[in-house]
Amino acid sequence: MKMEVINRYITIKNHVDGASQDSDFELRSSPLVLSLEPGSDEVIVKNLYVSIYPGQLIRMKSYSSSQECSKSAAAITPGEDIDAYGVGKVVVSGNPKFGKGDIVAGLLKWGEFTVVKPGGMLNKLDPMGFPLSYHVGMLGSVSGLSGLTAYAGFFEVCKPKKGEKVFVSAALGSVGNLVGQFAKVLGCYVVGCAGSKEKVALLKEKLGFDDAFNYREEPDLESTLQRYFPDGIDIYFDNVGGHMQKAAVSNMNINGRIAVCGVISEYTDRQKRAAPSMMDVIYKRIKIQGFLAGDYLNLFGDFLSTTCDYLRTGEIQPLEDISDGVESIPSALINLFGGQNTGKKIIKVAEE
Amino acid sequence: MKMEVINRYITIKNHVDGASQDSDFELRSSPLVLSLEPGSDEVIVKNLYVSIYPGQLIRMKSYSSSQECSKSAAAITPGEDIDAYGVGKVVVSGNPKFGKGDIVAGLLKWGEFTVVKPGGMLNKLDPMGFPLSYHVGMLGSVSGLSGLTAYAGFFEVCKPKKGEKVFVSAALGSVGNLVGQFAKVLGCYVVGCAGSKEKVALLKEKLGFDDAFNYREEPDLESTLQRYFPDGIDIYFDNVGGHMQKAAVSNMNINGRIAVCGVISEYTDRQKRAAPSMMDVIYKRIKIQGFLAGDYLNLFGDFLSTTCDYLRTGEIQPLEDISDGVESIPSALINLFGGQNTGKKIIKVAEE
Repeated sequence: MKMEVINRYITIKNHVDGASQDSDFELRSSPLVLSLEPGSDEVIVKNLYVSIYPGQLIRMKSYSSSQECSKSAAAITPGEDIDAYGVGKVVVSGNPKFGKGDIVAGLLKWGEFTVVKPGGMLNKLDPMGFPLSYHVGMLGSVSGLSGLTAYAGFFEVCKPKKGEKVFVSAALGSVGNLVGQFAKVLGCYVVGCAGSKEKVALLKEKLGFDDAFNYREEPDLESTLQRYFPDGIDIYFDNVGGHMQKAAVSNMNINGRIAVCGVISEYTDRQKRAAPSMMDVIYKRIKIQGFLAGDYLNLFGDFLSTTCDYLRTGEIQPLEDISDGVESIPSALINLFGGQNTGKKIIKVAEE
Repeated sequence: MKMEVINRYITIKNHVDGASQDSDFELRSSPLVLSLEPGSDEVIVKNLYVSIYPGQLIRMKSYSSSQECSKSAAAITPGEDIDAYGVGKVVVSGNPKFGKGDIVAGLLKWGEFTVVKPGGMLNKLDPMGFPLSYHVGMLGSVSGLSGLTAYAGFFEVCKPKKGEKVFVSAALGSVGNLVGQFAKVLGCYVVGCAGSKEKVALLKEKLGFDDAFNYREEPDLESTLQRYFPDGIDIYFDNVGGHMQKAAVSNMNINGRIAVCGVISEYTDRQKRAAPSMMDVIYKRIKIQGFLAGDYLNLFGDFLSTTCDYLRTGEIQPLEDISDGVESIPSALINLFGGQNTGKKIIKVAEE
C-alpha cells in the first residue's frame, strides 16, 4: 500500500523586480506518494525548518547579473517550487547513505516535503546538543548562510584587531547580530544600528553591543556616526549599502575596511544608491570588499567549533525569529526587507 | 659681496574649492640673497624641474577631510609659496651633506629657487643616465608620484596575473600610461580610455595598448566597456571615479579588483559622483581599494630597478608633457583637470 500525502509548497506567480508583496506568491498543493520506485536513489525528506534569506528575492528578479555569478543566486522560475536551506527528517530513502528517521540538512524546498534527487545537497546532521533550528541559521553549512557569512566576513575580510572600532548595520539581522557578538568577544568597540527602539535595547542589553541607534530617528547619518564614533570607524560591516555606506566612509579611519555583505537598500529599490567619496577612499586607503560565504567553506570547521564553544559558554547569544507553517513564508520574506525580523528568520514547517 | 636674485614663485590668492582658474593664482617676486648666515644649515636650490599633480588642487581647498589623512595632502595657505616635488641644483649649502653644484631631488617650491630648511626632504640624485625630468615624474621617489603609484597600485593592490583583462582610465595620465605599460609587459590584455582621437592613437600606436577609446564619444559607458571587454574586466585601474567606475563594476568579472588611484571627477565637482551596484560588488566579490604610494616606499628599490630596465630595453616608453617657466604653472594645473596633458606634467623652470 502506498501512503500519499498532500504536499503544500510556496511558489511565485511572476518574477519580482522590486519589493515583493503577498500577491506575488501562491501556496500550492500536490499529492506526493511517500514511497519510491524500485531502483530509485531519491530521498524524500519531511521538512522541519527552512531558511528565509534576502538572496532569495534577488533570485526572483526577471534578470540580475548576480544570477550569473553564483549558483546560490540562480534565477527562480514562476510556478516551480523554490529551494531553500533547511533541516528535515528522512521519510523514505533510496540512497544507502540515508535511512528512515535520519535528521538531515541541505538544500530543501519552501514546502512540507522535499524530494531530493541524486546529487542534491544533503547531509546527515549531528545537532551537537543544539536545537535543530540553529543548524538552519547560525550554524548552517552552506553558502549564503548567516553564521559562516558573519565569521568569514568579519575575520577574513575585515581582519579585525582587538580594540578596533566596529560599526554594524542591520545589526539585528541574521548576520549582523553575530558579527557584533564576534567583535565583542574579540575585544572591539561595537556600535550597531537597527530600525526600532526595541531593537536598540536588545542590541545593548541582550547582545552586549557598546552602543546602538535607531537609524529611522537619524536624519543626518554622517553626524550620527560622528557622534557614536568620535575616534572614527575602523571596520564597517555593511548589510545595507546606500546612504549608510556613504556616511560610514566619511567617518572611517585610515586603513578602514568595509565588508559588503548585503544591500537591503538595493534589493528592492535601485534609486536608493548613494556614492561614497572616492577621495576619502583614496586618502584613507579604504578597502571596500564584496564577499560570499561560499568562498570560505574551508573555514567551516574553525567557524563551527568556535561558535559552538561561544554558544555553550554564553559569550554568544542565539538570536532567532521563527514563524510557523509554510503559509507564513511569503510574509516572512516580505518582512525581511522591512527589517521586521530580529535575528535569523526561520520557518518551522513541522514538529519533529 | 652678497649676490641677490629675484625669485619668482607661484602662490594662490584664495582657497580653491571647485575647478581652479587663472585668477586664483598669482606670480610673485621677492629678492633672495644667495648666501647663508654663518652657522645656517639651510640649502639654497635652483629649481630645474618641478612636478604638477592633481593632489595639489585638493590641498588648495578651504577644507578637505583628506587633508587630515596624509602629510602630502596638507592644506596650502593663500599667499604662501607652494611646495612640489622637483629636481634642482645646489647653489649654496650650509649642510655638509650637500655641496655647490650637486643635483638634488626633493620637496622644492613652485618657484625659481627653494630655501630648504633643516629636516626638509632633499636627497642627492643619481640620474643613472636618464634625463633629470624622469626623476620628477616616473622615477621620482616620494609619495604621490606617478611611477611608484603605478607600480604599487598595479602590482600590489591589483595582484595581476598574466592574461588578465585590464582597463585603465585617464590612460595617458602620468600614472595611467605606466600602469598600461606595466600590464602589457606582464602579458595582460589592456584597454585604456582618454579624451581625444589623438590620445587614443597614441595609446595604441606608441604605448602598445591592445585597444583604446575616446570616452567623450561614448554616451553609454556600460555598453562601451562591454564592447571592449566581451569577456569582462578583471582589473580596473581607476583614475577618474564617477560614472566610469560605475560602468566598470557592471562589467567586472568575479574576483575583480579596482585600485582607486584618482578621482578627477570628484576633485572639481562633487556632483559627478555615481554609485556602483553593491549587489555586483557582493556577487562578484569585487574589491575596491584606495591607496597612496607613500605606503609602499619599501617597494621603491624594486620599482626603480624594474622600471629602469624596461626604459633601457624600450619595453616602456617615457611619456612626459613639459612646459617652460614658472609662469606656466597655473595653466598646467588647470589643464590637468581638463585632461589636456599627455603623460606626466612637468615644468622646466630653468636650464641646467
